[in-house]
Amino acid sequence: MGWGDLGAFGEPSKETPNLDQMAAEGMLFLDFYTASPLCSPSRAALLTGRLPVRNGFYTTNGHARNAYTPQDIVGGIPDSELLLPELLKKAGYVNKIIGKWHLGHRPQFHPLKHGFDEWFGSPNCHFGPYDNRERPNIPVYRDWEMVGRYYEDFKIDLKTGEANLTQLYLQEALDFISKQQASQQPFFLYWAIDATHAPVYASKQFLGTSQRGLYGDAVREIDDSVGKILKHLQQLGISENTFVFFTSDNGAALISAPKQGGSNGPFLCGKQTTFEGGMREPAIAWWPGHIPAGGVSHQLGSVMDLFSTSLSLAGLQPPSDRQIDGIDLLPVILQGKLIDRPIFYYRGNELMAVRAGLYKAHYWTWSNSWEEHGKGIDFCPGQSVSGVTTHTQEEHTFLPLLFHLGRDPGEKFPLSFASEEYQRAVEHISGLVQQHKATLVPGQPQLNVCDQAVMNWSPPGCEKLGKCLKAPESDPKKCSWPH
Amino acid sequence: MGWGDLGAFGEPSKETPNLDQMAAEGMLFLDFYTASPLCSPSRAALLTGRLPVRNGFYTTNGHARNAYTPQDIVGGIPDSELLLPELLKKAGYVNKIIGKWHLGHRPQFHPLKHGFDEWFGSPNCHFGPYDNRERPNIPVYRDWEMVGRYYEDFKIDLKTGEANLTQLYLQEALDFISKQQASQQPFFLYWAIDATHAPVYASKQFLGTSQRGLYGDAVREIDDSVGKILKHLQQLGISENTFVFFTSDNGAALISAPKQGGSNGPFLCGKQTTFEGGMREPAIAWWPGHIPAGGVSHQLGSVMDLFSTSLSLAGLQPPSDRQIDGIDLLPVILQGKLIDRPIFYYRGNELMAVRAGLYKAHYWTWSNSWEEHGKGIDFCPGQSVSGVTTHTQEEHTFLPLLFHLGRDPGEKFPLSFASEEYQRAVEHISGLVQQHKATLVPGQPQLNVCDQAVMNWSPPGCEKLGKCLKAPESDPKKCSWPH
Repeated sequence: MGWGDLGAFGEPSKETPNLDQMAAEGMLFLDFYTASPLCSPSRAALLTGRLPVRNGFYTTNGHARNAYTPQDIVGGIPDSELLLPELLKKAGYVNKIIGKWHLGHRPQFHPLKHGFDEWFGSPNCHFGPYDNRERPNIPVYRDWEMVGRYYEDFKIDLKTGEANLTQLYLQEALDFISKQQASQQPFFLYWAIDATHAPVYASKQFLGTSQRGLYGDAVREIDDSVGKILKHLQQLGISENTFVFFTSDNGAALISAPKQGGSNGPFLCGKQTTFEGGMREPAIAWWPGHIPAGGVSHQLGSVMDLFSTSLSLAGLQPPSDRQIDGIDLLPVILQGKLIDRPIFYYRGNELMAVRAGLYKAHYWTWSNSWEEHGKGIDFCPGQSVSGVTTHTQEEHTFLPLLFHLGRDPGEKFPLSFASEEYQRAVEHISGLVQQHKATLVPGQPQLNVCDQAVMNWSPPGCEKLGKCLKAPESDPKKCSWPH
Repeated sequence: MGWGDLGAFGEPSKETPNLDQMAAEGMLFLDFYTASPLCSPSRAALLTGRLPVRNGFYTTNGHARNAYTPQDIVGGIPDSELLLPELLKKAGYVNKIIGKWHLGHRPQFHPLKHGFDEWFGSPNCHFGPYDNRERPNIPVYRDWEMVGRYYEDFKIDLKTGEANLTQLYLQEALDFISKQQASQQPFFLYWAIDATHAPVYASKQFLGTSQRGLYGDAVREIDDSVGKILKHLQQLGISENTFVFFTSDNGAALISAPKQGGSNGPFLCGKQTTFEGGMREPAIAWWPGHIPAGGVSHQLGSVMDLFSTSLSLAGLQPPSDRQIDGIDLLPVILQGKLIDRPIFYYRGNELMAVRAGLYKAHYWTWSNSWEEHGKGIDFCPGQSVSGVTTHTQEEHTFLPLLFHLGRDPGEKFPLSFASEEYQRAVEHISGLVQQHKATLVPGQPQLNVCDQAVMNWSPPGCEKLGKCLKAPESDPKKCSWPH
């Protein structure tokens, strides 16, 4: 989902009354970022509070390439990483993930081995259907074991776009919340639904209800579900004890537009890129009785801050034996403070850009290669900014491209290199970069090796369902990451 | 000002608390249009309820060219046109225009000859400063006579962007409202401020207050002023008797971006074009006690509707001796109805595009000429949609380019000519076009002839101020309209 997909963020169909209401009752973040323009690294950053380049969710197979966890990926979240749910356990929290995990699907990466107590959902994207010979359909887990596969037991009708998955995920969320309220145990729910990810789907009752086509139907169902979750918290009388945050893991995938792609509002390009459209996210904090209603914040925020903020809410300290990139947003949320901090825009192993205040400096620009572009893959459809949306990787290290995001949120008018404003801003940002790079210890890259043998052939529990498949011989190779 | 310039419409700096509040208390129109992508024709349409091609505010000097009223224009609003204030007089209204008139500056076009009782403002744009030899500075009028000239008596500092004009216009508005309330006479106030028109200006107290630079400062001052006007109505106890509508006369002028140009949100291109960015406008209706708070409407609306709606509010009928293009929006505003009607996108003498429902068909496409583009004039900076943002005038009459504005508000993905959806929608829209063209009686074009002799050399009142200038010999020529 993109920054521009909610009514509160200016989507012209204005079809998200529940999320808009959540914003009206809580705090809207207008300058909130993900840590990667792609799913897996973004989610790894959210749960570890660390940049993907530190937690290993990146590749060195190519320069500045986006990588994730398709089912032939060998790597996943390293044991050495401390995840938010692992830490929350120390404060007695029960942790559940509903939906897409995406931090590796091999046994050692299972979410219940990394702090979650419960899981209902899938390890990978709902791509498919596959033939179960070349490639198995993605399993859906309940806790330790699979309970079926997408397209087989959990239907997604690619023709009509119908799938009731969001309803299943919603019911799981409501049930979990009820159970936790009854047992009076604190809980962390990571509700990682993925209906707006291609192939986009919605339940029957939402199909055709949006002005925006199937994508809009999916957004409406998510909006409706969030409304039901918030209402449930209120009806159980625990809304004033429950902090809720809504955001997305990357910008709208414009490559899927207009049928299956969303909106990044006035921002440049989309998912896969380090322009604002790829990494600025819708974000809403909600906590009645604590967050003043109708708040708006220009705090530069990050999904990694949800790690630190959640620990703070639980009365815990972040780990002190490693670099944490997230910051505690509670002073921002509760007292309206603004904390000075930069935003680092990584693509794979490369620091592409840095934002400090209203300035953003691009050290590298790239949308995608001419070769991919020639195949019709376009992350910036209808947009073309000379020297900015480049189809070759362009280095600007010694003369970064600088934008003022207040006057030019769409990154269309680079500041003149000769201006005093340029000199001042770049000097400041370059200092931040130097400091960042000097202390950076990259993690072991997890997304380099792919092997057909590690696919979801025989997930735990498959035997009970008669759904075990025969894996091919192991044949590890460097993964190919074209973007 | 553009659709995307208000916080309520998703401007990322969210700096318009008063207009956002106005929307929260009133009704937000998301699909509201001007009648021309340029100032004069748009304003002529607002005040006559008729398309510029009917009321004469267009040119036949070139095909599909935008024209307006610079000070060498010979034409203006014809006496045969009935303006809103002329009609409102019949119901006892006192009418005032504050700010830019723009319907002709020669004596016969004076606003007080066309129904207004009072005027404080200027007949043309605040371009300049001029040398008063080649070209006089634009006069500012109080009622029948000039009281000074821009840059001379009404300062605009082009270096700092400082000018206190919006404050003057605000005070005029507050005073007029107070006076009318005291005399218990109904009033129509046309508050036509122009601070966001290049050269952009703001008062000292607003300079540097926006994240968006000078343009944002101007928006903030307008926002603040609207807040003060609404508060004034409330304090005088007449807010429940006063209908207020906020909108703009064309999309943001992206040619002036980023320093002096605004935002059209997710829409394509800007002012001068018939893409959504050129003609879809921010629009808010406010009338406490009558309009339900927080309303949102997808009614296809037009500035011309303000003519019909205002007459309806005053208990008057629109003239029956001519074609009126505006419709009465009261059923929409008060009862939430949706009225089926198309939107016609004209550029000069050409019907470029038509919207019906969520479909928009382009019969002609043009941004600007290669020649102008080569001079750095760009109405679509950073945007380029192949076959859509064309630099030659492209006719699509027999196979219109069709967009679905719900799925694709940015007009980036034309529907396939072969699709059933295309056939159905184009058939419907072509019927509307046929009907429209069959009954269209174009007015006498007013914007064809220019003459240096008609400039504001010696406006009435100049002698009292010693500000009369000598006009050159009359030398009427065809005006040159490059866009």
